[in-house]
Amino acid sequence: MSTKYVYLFADGQTEGTGQMKDLLGGKGSGLAEMTNAGMPVPPGFTITTEACNAYYTEGEQFPEGMWDQALEALAKVEAFTGKKFGGSDNPLLVSVRSGAKFSMPGMMDTVLNLGLNDETRVALAKMTNNERFSWDAYRRFIQLFGKIVLNIDSEKFEHVFDGYKKQLGVKGDTEVGEETLAKVVADFKAIVKKETGNEFPTDPLDQVKYAIKAVFASWNGRRAKDYRRINKIDDNLGTAVNVQTMVFGNMGEDSGTGVAFTRDVSTGEKVLYGEYLQNAQGEDVVAGTRTPKKIAQLHEEMPEMYNQFVELANRLERHYKDVQDMEFTIERGKLYMLQTRNAKRTGAAAVRVAVEMVEEGVIDKATAIQRVEPAQLDQLLHPMIDPKASLNVIATGLPASPGAASGTAVFDPDEAEEMAKEGKKVILVRTETSPEDFHGMVAAQAILTSRGGMTSHAAVVARGMGKCCVAGCDQVVVDYANQQFTVGDLVVKKGDSITLDGSTGRVITGEVPLINPEISGHFKTLMEWVNDYRKLGVRANADTPHDSEVARGFGAEGIGLCRTEHMFFEGNRIDSVRQMILSSSDFKNLEAQLATARADAEKSGSKDAAKRVKDLEKKIAKPEQLYKGALADLLELQREDFVGIFRAMNGFPVTIRTLDPPLHEFVPHDDKTLKELAAKIKMPFKEAKAKVTSLHEFNPMLGHRGCRLGIIYPEITEMQARAIFEAAVKVKAEGVTVKPEIMIPLVGNVIELKLQADVVRRVAGEVFAATGQSVEYLVGTMIEVPRAALTANQIAEVAEFFSFGTNDLTQMTMGLSRDDSGKFLPAYVEKKIYGDDPFQVLDQTGVGQLVDIGIQKGRSSKPNLKVGICGEHGGDPESVIFCHKVGMNYVSCSPYRVPIALLAAAHAALADKGAAKTTTA
Amino acid sequence: MSTKYVYLFADGQTEGTGQMKDLLGGKGSGLAEMTNAGMPVPPGFTITTEACNAYYTEGEQFPEGMWDQALEALAKVEAFTGKKFGGSDNPLLVSVRSGAKFSMPGMMDTVLNLGLNDETRVALAKMTNNERFSWDAYRRFIQLFGKIVLNIDSEKFEHVFDGYKKQLGVKGDTEVGEETLAKVVADFKAIVKKETGNEFPTDPLDQVKYAIKAVFASWNGRRAKDYRRINKIDDNLGTAVNVQTMVFGNMGEDSGTGVAFTRDVSTGEKVLYGEYLQNAQGEDVVAGTRTPKKIAQLHEEMPEMYNQFVELANRLERHYKDVQDMEFTIERGKLYMLQTRNAKRTGAAAVRVAVEMVEEGVIDKATAIQRVEPAQLDQLLHPMIDPKASLNVIATGLPASPGAASGTAVFDPDEAEEMAKEGKKVILVRTETSPEDFHGMVAAQAILTSRGGMTSHAAVVARGMGKCCVAGCDQVVVDYANQQFTVGDLVVKKGDSITLDGSTGRVITGEVPLINPEISGHFKTLMEWVNDYRKLGVRANADTPHDSEVARGFGAEGIGLCRTEHMFFEGNRIDSVRQMILSSSDFKNLEAQLATARADAEKSGSKDAAKRVKDLEKKIAKPEQLYKGALADLLELQREDFVGIFRAMNGFPVTIRTLDPPLHEFVPHDDKTLKELAAKIKMPFKEAKAKVTSLHEFNPMLGHRGCRLGIIYPEITEMQARAIFEAAVKVKAEGVTVKPEIMIPLVGNVIELKLQADVVRRVAGEVFAATGQSVEYLVGTMIEVPRAALTANQIAEVAEFFSFGTNDLTQMTMGLSRDDSGKFLPAYVEKKIYGDDPFQVLDQTGVGQLVDIGIQKGRSSKPNLKVGICGEHGGDPESVIFCHKVGMNYVSCSPYRVPIALLAAAHAALADKGAAKTTTA
Repeated sequence: MSTKYVYLFADGQTEGTGQMKDLLGGKGSGLAEMTNAGMPVPPGFTITTEACNAYYTEGEQFPEGMWDQALEALAKVEAFTGKKFGGSDNPLLVSVRSGAKFSMPGMMDTVLNLGLNDETRVALAKMTNNERFSWDAYRRFIQLFGKIVLNIDSEKFEHVFDGYKKQLGVKGDTEVGEETLAKVVADFKAIVKKETGNEFPTDPLDQVKYAIKAVFASWNGRRAKDYRRINKIDDNLGTAVNVQTMVFGNMGEDSGTGVAFTRDVSTGEKVLYGEYLQNAQGEDVVAGTRTPKKIAQLHEEMPEMYNQFVELANRLERHYKDVQDMEFTIERGKLYMLQTRNAKRTGAAAVRVAVEMVEEGVIDKATAIQRVEPAQLDQLLHPMIDPKASLNVIATGLPASPGAASGTAVFDPDEAEEMAKEGKKVILVRTETSPEDFHGMVAAQAILTSRGGMTSHAAVVARGMGKCCVAGCDQVVVDYANQQFTVGDLVVKKGDSITLDGSTGRVITGEVPLINPEISGHFKTLMEWVNDYRKLGVRANADTPHDSEVARGFGAEGIGLCRTEHMFFEGNRIDSVRQMILSSSDFKNLEAQLATARADAEKSGSKDAAKRVKDLEKKIAKPEQLYKGALADLLELQREDFVGIFRAMNGFPVTIRTLDPPLHEFVPHDDKTLKELAAKIKMPFKEAKAKVTSLHEFNPMLGHRGCRLGIIYPEITEMQARAIFEAAVKVKAEGVTVKPEIMIPLVGNVIELKLQADVVRRVAGEVFAATGQSVEYLVGTMIEVPRAALTANQIAEVAEFFSFGTNDLTQMTMGLSRDDSGKFLPAYVEKKIYGDDPFQVLDQTGVGQLVDIGIQKGRSSKPNLKVGICGEHGGDPESVIFCHKVGMNYVSCSPYRVPIALLAAAHAALADKGAAKTTTA
Repeated sequence: MSTKYVYLFADGQTEGTGQMKDLLGGKGSGLAEMTNAGMPVPPGFTITTEACNAYYTEGEQFPEGMWDQALEALAKVEAFTGKKFGGSDNPLLVSVRSGAKFSMPGMMDTVLNLGLNDETRVALAKMTNNERFSWDAYRRFIQLFGKIVLNIDSEKFEHVFDGYKKQLGVKGDTEVGEETLAKVVADFKAIVKKETGNEFPTDPLDQVKYAIKAVFASWNGRRAKDYRRINKIDDNLGTAVNVQTMVFGNMGEDSGTGVAFTRDVSTGEKVLYGEYLQNAQGEDVVAGTRTPKKIAQLHEEMPEMYNQFVELANRLERHYKDVQDMEFTIERGKLYMLQTRNAKRTGAAAVRVAVEMVEEGVIDKATAIQRVEPAQLDQLLHPMIDPKASLNVIATGLPASPGAASGTAVFDPDEAEEMAKEGKKVILVRTETSPEDFHGMVAAQAILTSRGGMTSHAAVVARGMGKCCVAGCDQVVVDYANQQFTVGDLVVKKGDSITLDGSTGRVITGEVPLINPEISGHFKTLMEWVNDYRKLGVRANADTPHDSEVARGFGAEGIGLCRTEHMFFEGNRIDSVRQMILSSSDFKNLEAQLATARADAEKSGSKDAAKRVKDLEKKIAKPEQLYKGALADLLELQREDFVGIFRAMNGFPVTIRTLDPPLHEFVPHDDKTLKELAAKIKMPFKEAKAKVTSLHEFNPMLGHRGCRLGIIYPEITEMQARAIFEAAVKVKAEGVTVKPEIMIPLVGNVIELKLQADVVRRVAGEVFAATGQSVEYLVGTMIEVPRAALTANQIAEVAEFFSFGTNDLTQMTMGLSRDDSGKFLPAYVEKKIYGDDPFQVLDQTGVGQLVDIGIQKGRSSKPNLKVGICGEHGGDPESVIFCHKVGMNYVSCSPYRVPIALLAAAHAALADKGAAKTTTA
């Protein structure tokens, strides 16, 4: 018994159903469904995706039985239509179209008008009583078949046709008469003969056979492969092939063709939306050679057809309970539905349709939530370029942070800050950014860098601020000396206007109109429903009171990561930070020497020892004053920072990470600034320079940072803890509900955490004792070093919460530096070594194991351990779903991704319910 | 019923045994054992380690019952000796000594002559008929008690005593008469009164009580703690206290005291070895105030005593079946044994004793193997400084690579090479080394760096070459401009002689006599036995034919890691490497553009496209010639390298790692060299400079290196594979048995391995087809990225072997850069966050888990997967034992550590047997 490879669809004889998407593809199952629902669908048959896969496994041969089944189905179509394939009387013409499980618009190939040859053309002319139409169909057929099935360059056909049009002095195709079209057909046949060495195939069955093979081949064409790679569609699904009776929209003024959506897919408004062309075939709509009319006009031109179509459209939407994207053709006053599928839509439309369909009673809330892709919400949260604007795109980089912005190009962060103060909108252009550029990034509308990847400093910081960024745009050559950048021969000077589109990576000259998408009432409604379904908490990564307010506005339920050091660059506090750093090592060295000397002196009582103590006391005085003075200054500043954040997050927990980055990130690397600093703290320049140099590290990512700083310099942790608790006590007195959670970074060993937690708890006790007030607080840790995940059972004995720092955990687990991976990671994704950039989408296979191990081991010693994530992945929908699955309590992400995370969390919870249903059913 | 805290030892009444080391400490159990064996041991009692621990848990109070038990035991000692503690007639004097489970020489405190006061002194004088002796004993007692129990600075006593000696105009203590000593005693008592505010305690029981407390306190003294930290002794063991009847070696010319070993602990020769002093107490031997005599002289001076002692020594060695370290005292012609314990010995002695004791039939081979600590063998494998030499040590750095060497200081690697060619011995001094310095390191006798840790480039390379290295010596300030270094005010100029001791980290001025320890026949014998017991294979990390021969000579059974790039710096081949690097990116970019352009041209057939192809073909010509030309040159050179290595390792497997380090390690970083290179390959200097700059990485450790190079530049892997297989085919024709194992580094994902393995296997096929010869080979991978361990089941589907690269695995798992950890890792070890430097001793708790996971997952998909290790840990005994336990097939280490690994492997196998015995018993 041979496999069933062919499924007929014809009113009353349809073999497939709308559920058979895997086997029949989206289009095939849609055609079966529509036919079953009694819609006017031109009859035909679908060759299954299994046939496609078998075709490849059998060395590009049709699998056994397939062709016979196709012939059988064809005979039934002939019987149904009363037409004859290749018949010289009432000839049947067919289209051959691909149709995979997932829509791949424009990626796959279609051939129309199969069945035409010299005889059937005559019959077609007779049957339609239209000689010109028959020649035009024949001309189109040879060209399309030549291009798609025979791989002949389209230009060759166009060249000939254009020649005739020039000869005739006409522009439009419809102005070419039948005699000329006949010559064109002859010439086209000659082209085929010349290019392939063979005559154009005249046997209609051969035509269909070759066309089916071409559709199968198109599955592995470059365009299709690229599309699948980008859209993460499995290469092994295969495509189905639909062979369907042709209907003609170009049979005169009572004919036409069009595409329409049951609702407006840009806005989601409930209004029939689409366009059509009278006396035209489908490809004319797509090709754009004629300007189509709005669907509403059909109401006036063919009212009966319009009413029929509206009725069908409404039935289809009710049937599928979703917005439909439909193709139709009117052949001499008869309406045919050629295709229907769920419509792609913008984020705004997705939200509105989902909410309104609930209001209309079409779907329930859970379905509405599932109808909106979390990633789509991104469009609602950033300004975008007006789609109608004409753009001069000069380069394209990485879409590092979404949104769009215009401004004048500036190359220096200080200048960016100054100009912004003057009220100018600036775009900061740098080869790459570093924390020293932070103030310039804050001041700028957007950031453009010529180096760095999706997780370079510029990209990460910009995303955190919800600010547009195009990164790693290597066509842009930045020339600081001349305050300009070039793209090829084009020069953009300081002060020139540019526009960046961070959603696509485009760099555009001049100013461009932007749209500030409105967060409509529907969006708010949807997010309220989301909160009823999700189980995972969602917090935000926010470092300032302003960010905290934004986050809260977007629905964040707390701060999951407050990077205290981001505040170090604000205003002139960086001077205190630098003073602290430059004096720290001297102070610590002398402190250790002094301790030893004092112990020696106490034990021996000798004069020498006493003298040494005195000498050291003298020596330590200056570094001590500098170090402790700087810490005292920072205490004041940090306390005020925390007061602001605590007030903004009244009632919600705030997770504050102690100092994390290596110290060299804070010191000046230009001699001028360093000289000023050295003069200010009365340190010889040479000494200051030596200290800066000594902070250099080969691999700073794995160097002296995170808790390693606090362990060597416990005074810094102490200062930060004091600032936190003093701020907490202060706002509590104001009536603010404050829940600080102090988080120790880069812990790899429980003893590290213990040493730092001891400092924090001691300081808390001191502050509470001194003020007579106390606040509830937690001390926990980042899990970002693989060893921490592996020894999480030990760490959980001290930690009151875990927060997975999956940025660093990814770097270390994969041995992959974010900042350096730009050289090979694109090639890696290209070669499918990794499906996605692992810094955007969590690598569940590798890094995910450590997350899972970390949670399980952590809860093995502390069953109710609170667990979250605060890497970039906390805002990526796939990764959020993973976090839900492994049992985290919350995710934390950029404020601008909070709604996305909330929606993804609801999706995850609903998927659980779905799974639960399946298993209990 | 109260705990038994006190154990009596007295002939016939001994309560302890030699097995009770945990409870009675090493000394106490030894005293019990000796007494039980009928040796002449002065009677006494031991207070247990449990008592010490209880003392601390009870807030520094004697636990209940302890003191009563002590008094009871004391009464028995009185009865046994017929003396009375505090008696005015025949007074008993005792010593109070600490005695922990493990010997902690010089780390713990001892008090002698307890029981003396004004009355007993008189009695002692009467009893011994020696007034001066009694005063001297009293004087010593007050000083020692004052210092140890009452914490009075010794100098205060010395000062007084010295004053009297000066007054008398004498130098030796023995020249001071009894009248003066009586005055000294009075003054000493006054010192005690002044310093403590109390009279010197005259009650003998108080004296004992305070002394016991002082011994308990000494367990937590700084010296003891430091010793335990360094020697990895558990802080919770506690110390026992031995209270023992005093015997006096200073009762005249028929008295004496000494220490002796049953064999020579330097050489292992079977000869009584030790020294003694006539008319002296034990502390005189230790203090070095008098020069002791060789033990052989006792034979002449007190032949009877000597013979008795020899007889006892022989009995003790037979009893303990190991070399004994004994203390004895002769009191008026009667010999007393005060202590015996297994003797510490040098590596050479350990080997000789172990082998000879087997030959003597004392122990079996397995015991002999276990008697030698693997780490001790290190001493046998490197030159060492003559212990008799007097040294001017100017600084101490990290003991980065053992051995010692003298030579003239040189600061430039080129100069080092030139001078070495002239036959001069040079020491290369650098702030730190990089691969560019390799030729200078090869030429030098030893390397000194002022920066970098135990696993810095200098340290790793030096250990690999078995060359002495002192690293990270931060007292040394290198001044390249003046070709000198300074240590404080001391200046060492180029050409000055210095000596380095890489085993201790010492930097010494001038030349110093060195000893080249002979690898004696005993060593060879032991290693033969080792091979009968061990199960783990041992290979060497070797990069050159010379290293391969050395490794083989040391017993390596193959090469576990051949780092092909180490050969890149030899001779002028670095020029080809650099040419390859500077042309690689241009070639690859243009190659990709050309591929696209050709496809476009083929598809469209347009003239523009064809022109673009031609333009690109023209453009690619030069980089292609440079790139492929360089690869062709390298192919020749590498093939010859491999021929040499294969010949040297005839019959053994050779694991060759494909290119691993980031490319920037190979390019010149000084403009002069780069200019020459640019001129040579006719590349504008600016362009060459830009390329070098573009190779900079923020975290090169996690950057574009390892297989990531081979994936972007498969031609490099192809060249290396071709060199390997062409070399293999060539030597096979010579009759050499060749077993190449090609190892792909830095794999984190099975697809990476697959892509590289495909290249290697394709090239193998090509070479075999071209030559008509073939060789067996394997393709495997390093497991050094955490993700590789976590996905080892997938990777093992492609890999034919795993080799754990625990250097990188440690860096990534712990988030710890080897080169940067110097700033905080010492403090981490100090604070006991990590017990050891994890780059020297494998972190079994963290990194070890990934090793275990990697092996288990790997073997889950390939049960017979061959697994090894090739990080530095492969030569560390503890880590080797771990590798045995987790089921590895082999370890691979520096050639100079092969015997250590072999011995550790045997220890591991014997421990298994021991465990098996225990469990089956």
